[in-house]
Amino acid sequence: MHTAIIGVGLIGGSFAKDIKKLWPEATIYGIDSNPEHVQQALDLSIIDQKADYAVLAECDLVIVSIPVDILVVELPKILDACGEDTVVVDAGSTKQLICETVAEHPKRRNFLACHPISGTEFSGPKAAMDGLYQGKTNIICEVEKTAFVLQERALKLFQALDMRIRYMNPVAHDKHIAYVSHLSHISSFMLGKTVIEKEKNERDIFDMAGSGFESTVRLAKSSPQMWTPIIKQNKKEVVETLNEYIQNLEHFKQLLFEEDYESVFSEMDNTNRIKQILKGIPLTKNKINDGE
Amino acid sequence: MHTAIIGVGLIGGSFAKDIKKLWPEATIYGIDSNPEHVQQALDLSIIDQKADYAVLAECDLVIVSIPVDILVVELPKILDACGEDTVVVDAGSTKQLICETVAEHPKRRNFLACHPISGTEFSGPKAAMDGLYQGKTNIICEVEKTAFVLQERALKLFQALDMRIRYMNPVAHDKHIAYVSHLSHISSFMLGKTVIEKEKNERDIFDMAGSGFESTVRLAKSSPQMWTPIIKQNKKEVVETLNEYIQNLEHFKQLLFEEDYESVFSEMDNTNRIKQILKGIPLTKNKINDGE
Repeated sequence: MHTAIIGVGLIGGSFAKDIKKLWPEATIYGIDSNPEHVQQALDLSIIDQKADYAVLAECDLVIVSIPVDILVVELPKILDACGEDTVVVDAGSTKQLICETVAEHPKRRNFLACHPISGTEFSGPKAAMDGLYQGKTNIICEVEKTAFVLQERALKLFQALDMRIRYMNPVAHDKHIAYVSHLSHISSFMLGKTVIEKEKNERDIFDMAGSGFESTVRLAKSSPQMWTPIIKQNKKEVVETLNEYIQNLEHFKQLLFEEDYESVFSEMDNTNRIKQILKGIPLTKNKINDGE
Repeated sequence: MHTAIIGVGLIGGSFAKDIKKLWPEATIYGIDSNPEHVQQALDLSIIDQKADYAVLAECDLVIVSIPVDILVVELPKILDACGEDTVVVDAGSTKQLICETVAEHPKRRNFLACHPISGTEFSGPKAAMDGLYQGKTNIICEVEKTAFVLQERALKLFQALDMRIRYMNPVAHDKHIAYVSHLSHISSFMLGKTVIEKEKNERDIFDMAGSGFESTVRLAKSSPQMWTPIIKQNKKEVVETLNEYIQNLEHFKQLLFEEDYESVFSEMDNTNRIKQILKGIPLTKNKINDGE
């Protein structure tokens, strides 16, 4: 299987590693605007050859794993360059603008809009790992717009990787993902900011913080290069989640003002059922995920 | 060493297990208002004998690990009952009210105010584990108010457990801990609430949430029984941290409104240095900590 990976970082590189394991005869072409990453990917045998879009016409599978602002610019060009029988799969954390961008593209049927809910705190080819996608959810949007035989080829890969497939429309994807991913990132960044600003003497944080704090601010390690365009593309939904989150925080504060500790208790008690919900979330082996 | 553990849950039980390992000849008395927990602790050989406050007069060491609202009621009685040569150590997540409560107690010199920054998501004697405190910070307040020989006995234990000792006054403790622990818990509870409220169909959360979300809402699993009194006792500081956190979230939302994505980028980029800060936090082996 001729495969091109556009963006040979954590996401693309991990796909490449798994594909190589599943189909040792596959040729993996690597395309990346960062020449250092291409070289690293070659050195690590993640890709077989450096390439450019000219190779896409001969590929069975193209995986596009680049920041979503670059994705909306490049995806039409990628489809222009791909063959009649190529399936182009993306891994963007937003789906509405991406799907709109190629809605009228003559090769729309060659594109499968995907969002694999997986990642780690690290980035670049060195962060690529085997089995990153095992047991993880892959959200597929507008599946009906992709040629059936090409859907099948992509699904064969996802099933071989043991991913859980969920179908969703792009609007619903962006709405829900704002709650379970984008808001988490902002809440974490702002928590980090609040503590860093207050604790000018960082030794105090270092000494008093436990793993609970670490867990809550973990996503504040995420890449601003990746996250600014995600938040920008999903601005409307993100603002709505922020409004609701701020409202809930204000309400909690109000309960403290009123010394209504019965309600403070209830607020926490009602949210405890997150335990049951979280039980269903598959964890990445190395635990940390800011790549959603 | 005669040791009494008042509150034989995760915190007290883990101390008991480590003490038994360090000093096999020690006798561990267990005191708990919950008879089931006492029985479990006996069955698990965490404690040697069930006891009541009458035993405290003969004890070298008493560890009090109960919710902070009960702690302020019980601590004076515990000091009343303890011997002239007993050191009473607490593990409360607040320090100011606790220290005030016993400030004038005739046996104030028998008390060492402590806050071990350690825990897991679980509670009760079954959650007690070996080595919970290894490498963790223990904040000691008003050390000068404790008899020197009794400080030494407690420190011998903490050093044997490989804890990092930090001395702090109770006001500073409550102020800083509001940022690195109490605010994290509230931000996590309110994030969980926001998502649960919105996503009435919980399958959507389950399917779309990744380990990033899991990490950010992990503390929303924490016990409301334990956390309501902590927040109540530290209300003033907690409200201040909440004000600053909400202000930062509002500012971020405003930047989105104004489409000022350069500033959105900077907000995240500036907070990325949390990476360096987090490197210094020792992790609990089983990773999850809501017991701070």
